[in-house]
Amino acid sequence: MLITLYLIGITAEAMTGALAAGRLKMDLFGVVMIASVTAFGGGSVRDILLGHYPLTWIAHPEYLLLTTLAALVATWIAPYMSRLRNLFLALDALGLMAFTVIGAQVALGMELGAPVAALAGLITGMFGGVIRDLLCNRVPLVFQKELYAVVSLGAAVLYLALLHWLVPEWLAVLVTVVSGFSVRLLAIRFGWHLPRFEYNVPDA
Amino acid sequence: MLITLYLIGITAEAMTGALAAGRLKMDLFGVVMIASVTAFGGGSVRDILLGHYPLTWIAHPEYLLLTTLAALVATWIAPYMSRLRNLFLALDALGLMAFTVIGAQVALGMELGAPVAALAGLITGMFGGVIRDLLCNRVPLVFQKELYAVVSLGAAVLYLALLHWLVPEWLAVLVTVVSGFSVRLLAIRFGWHLPRFEYNVPDA
Amino acid sequence: MLITLYLIGITAEAMTGALAAGRLKMDLFGVVMIASVTAFGGGSVRDILLGHYPLTWIAHPEYLLLTTLAALVATWIAPYMSRLRNLFLALDALGLMAFTVIGAQVALGMELGAPVAALAGLITGMFGGVIRDLLCNRVPLVFQKELYAVVSLGAAVLYLALLHWLVPEWLAVLVTVVSGFSVRLLAIRFGWHLPRFEYNVPDA
Repeated sequence: MLITLYLIGITAEAMTGALAAGRLKMDLFGVVMIASVTAFGGGSVRDILLGHYPLTWIAHPEYLLLTTLAALVATWIAPYMSRLRNLFLALDALGLMAFTVIGAQVALGMELGAPVAALAGLITGMFGGVIRDLLCNRVPLVFQKELYAVVSLGAAVLYLALLHWLVPEWLAVLVTVVSGFSVRLLAIRFGWHLPRFEYNVPDA
Repeated sequence: MLITLYLIGITAEAMTGALAAGRLKMDLFGVVMIASVTAFGGGSVRDILLGHYPLTWIAHPEYLLLTTLAALVATWIAPYMSRLRNLFLALDALGLMAFTVIGAQVALGMELGAPVAALAGLITGMFGGVIRDLLCNRVPLVFQKELYAVVSLGAAVLYLALLHWLVPEWLAVLVTVVSGFSVRLLAIRFGWHLPRFEYNVPDA
Repeated sequence: MLITLYLIGITAEAMTGALAAGRLKMDLFGVVMIASVTAFGGGSVRDILLGHYPLTWIAHPEYLLLTTLAALVATWIAPYMSRLRNLFLALDALGLMAFTVIGAQVALGMELGAPVAALAGLITGMFGGVIRDLLCNRVPLVFQKELYAVVSLGAAVLYLALLHWLVPEWLAVLVTVVSGFSVRLLAIRFGWHLPRFEYNVPDA
């Protein structure tokens, strides 16, 4: 189940990357690059920070075919994307949960302790979008928009708590994915967001 | 002493990150993220470039509580920050020196030779701010403003020279921190900066 | 031969970095930093992604003298750079081919298989410029301009195919460099580029 969700996740992330590239009128190579970096960026940042080698897309370069295909499909169906928006956001939320759980599992597999595992889940969930936005020269959306990263962090904490309470692995994954997915969709629906901090003194 | 300076350093760096996030009206999660990435970014870049694992904040996730707290405090005292500016710049200069010395020590501990150790000190000192500015979508201040990175590089070279001349470790640290701190404050006070290079031909 | 081409490559890349820094009126330290990061960025990203330590400039810090010198020379000859443009583009194309072949060789030396080796060649060729553009706060040129990264990827594939067909190493390198160099210059001369993807719906 988690692998299916992971593949949905990299596909959805690749499509967000392709659309961001299209907003900058990139060529098809740039579109495929941004899509792939968005899809694999979160896991790669996690693995580099943890020293966890080889990276997923180096062990499985065939996954790059999936993100390449997702990017090209995104260029074809772009005119209909606004109508598919709800489906797309749902797939993205499922992918976010898969990334979060997998990230936490990687850190646990390295015996790194719950705090680092929670951070590893968060980093896996959010950094693909951060790198996409860096390459597209804009402030990362995740720092400004409705609850996204916080849902990832919360889901990671929930998952770790369930394991700590000896809930079976499959059930912990299921509860985490369903809860996180629901909260994320509710956050989008009702525009939930954290308080903002405004500071208007320019840097001297 | 060096650990105390290090903790001052990550606190001061976290606060510069929080204020930069506030200039972009980020939410509290973004503020804490930018603050933590600013505080730990320099050391993390150094460790990744050198292959030095585990990273500091992974070995000591409790340090993230300090940067989180520093970020939240920065949002509360933001209205008074301009009056605290001189104190703040002094703490930041102390932190820069701690980062520089620690960075050089890490490389020496890996037996990497003086040139790499000097670079490791520089990278530790400057890259937190570089990543902060990347995430905030602006050209890194450190490439444009009065002496900052050069003070870090000079301090690293001084520290390595003192060790080479068999000055005791504690004295080498003390002389380096005091000298670098003083030069940094003088550079701010008198607006010392390196010559600039202007090139106005657009990229074809 | 490959080492000579590599040294030409880091020199040319350092000069593009220095000019980009000059467009932002950076100080000399910033110019040297951007130049060095541009020159070594591609190889460093490759090595970090592959877990291939030590990085080139850490094993050979003396190469940094070359990029520093190249950056300073670029600031002196900047007024004549537009007249030297064709020479400069040719050197850059040679360097791109050297980076590509060396990147593929590194992955092959780690027994990583042809798909990863092709990607390693591409990453080595393109990421120096990507990091330069990130630090200079602009969308990476490589995603928008005439054929550059695609030439690198194509050259890497050609090189791997020649090795697979048991062409002697030196001949494979020669054929790859000459072919890639020629295609790159033709792409510049005739403005060849891939189709672009335009998407004008703003991010919601």
